[in-house]
Amino acid sequence: MKILLIGAGGTIGSAVKAELAQRHDVIAIGHNSGDFQVDISDSASIRKLFEQTGTFDALICAAGSVNFVALGEMSATDFELGLRDKLMGQVNLLLIGREFANDGASFTFTSGILNRDPIRTGASAALVNGALDAFVKAAAIELPRGLRINSVSPTVLVEAMGSYAPYFRGFKPVAGAEVALAYAKSVEGLQTGQTFIVG
Amino acid sequence: MKILLIGAGGTIGSAVKAELAQRHDVIAIGHNSGDFQVDISDSASIRKLFEQTGTFDALICAAGSVNFVALGEMSATDFELGLRDKLMGQVNLLLIGREFANDGASFTFTSGILNRDPIRTGASAALVNGALDAFVKAAAIELPRGLRINSVSPTVLVEAMGSYAPYFRGFKPVAGAEVALAYAKSVEGLQTGQTFIVG
Repeated sequence: MKILLIGAGGTIGSAVKAELAQRHDVIAIGHNSGDFQVDISDSASIRKLFEQTGTFDALICAAGSVNFVALGEMSATDFELGLRDKLMGQVNLLLIGREFANDGASFTFTSGILNRDPIRTGASAALVNGALDAFVKAAAIELPRGLRINSVSPTVLVEAMGSYAPYFRGFKPVAGAEVALAYAKSVEGLQTGQTFIVG
Repeated sequence: MKILLIGAGGTIGSAVKAELAQRHDVIAIGHNSGDFQVDISDSASIRKLFEQTGTFDALICAAGSVNFVALGEMSATDFELGLRDKLMGQVNLLLIGREFANDGASFTFTSGILNRDPIRTGASAALVNGALDAFVKAAAIELPRGLRINSVSPTVLVEAMGSYAPYFRGFKPVAGAEVALAYAKSVEGLQTGQTFIVG
């Protein structure tokens, strides 16, 4: 399979690449690194990416930014990054990417644990994750040509605890290699409209 | 209790008013009707509303627009209404309204069934509903002064089937009076961070 992996240089992305590159042609895509670059918050950048990569059998997005701010200090502006980048960035990867998707291709997006198990400063992340998990469930039933769409919702990764531990006290981290299995299940299996929870 | 009811003239709002006006001072708010008017997609309009109403003990929002479009015809633009109006409109009612909320006041927002049981043309509605249910769960743990926040997620209403039936074939509608009970539970009970599912 020809797999486009957005966020390939990140903590999740590098684990996903290690898992899937054993069996597939994985094209690494990053904001500033990788074989190709994309800014998922920009529709024109997304279209340019696909014009460069050509058609594909699977797209994985393990990228997306949100603001972490205490709710007491939040205004509507603090939600804009998450809406534009992690949420609509991934939605747009489907809306634009479907033109370049081969029959039966899959889209696998990344949400996260915070809509299920919230933390301080996590209101925007929770909102975005809940939106993504709902979107894949709804979009799946309308996709033509055997196209599939799922999300992976991991807890915090072992490899990220160096910087994230203060935000995730009491959370049991999971290894990136275990999170990567959920992406493999989405890409190499046949399910659609699912949120694969890890941790 | 002094209860601000946004969307008071709508199908859900009128049922909620009938339930709560028996025991409380319900102030009817609409886009064009009611005691006061507000455009929830406009932060300035929200602030002006609260400056007119003054402090309150409960705020209910039974308003919010999204576009219903077949996924195959959707572009990012079709998601903007839902993000700006039903989603961020309700988030902004909390972010701005908390300044006017008495200690222990509650916020009750309206999501809906489509993130749990999707339909054709419902991708934007599902995304928004999932975001709202996640937001109330996350925001609840950060609210000070005993403030509470919940969402009500109803299926289609009996009273709305005249126009909505073609979209909701096979769904069992519930009466507005039954949906109104969930809002009463949110306002008059003590739970927070919950999504009350009706139907």
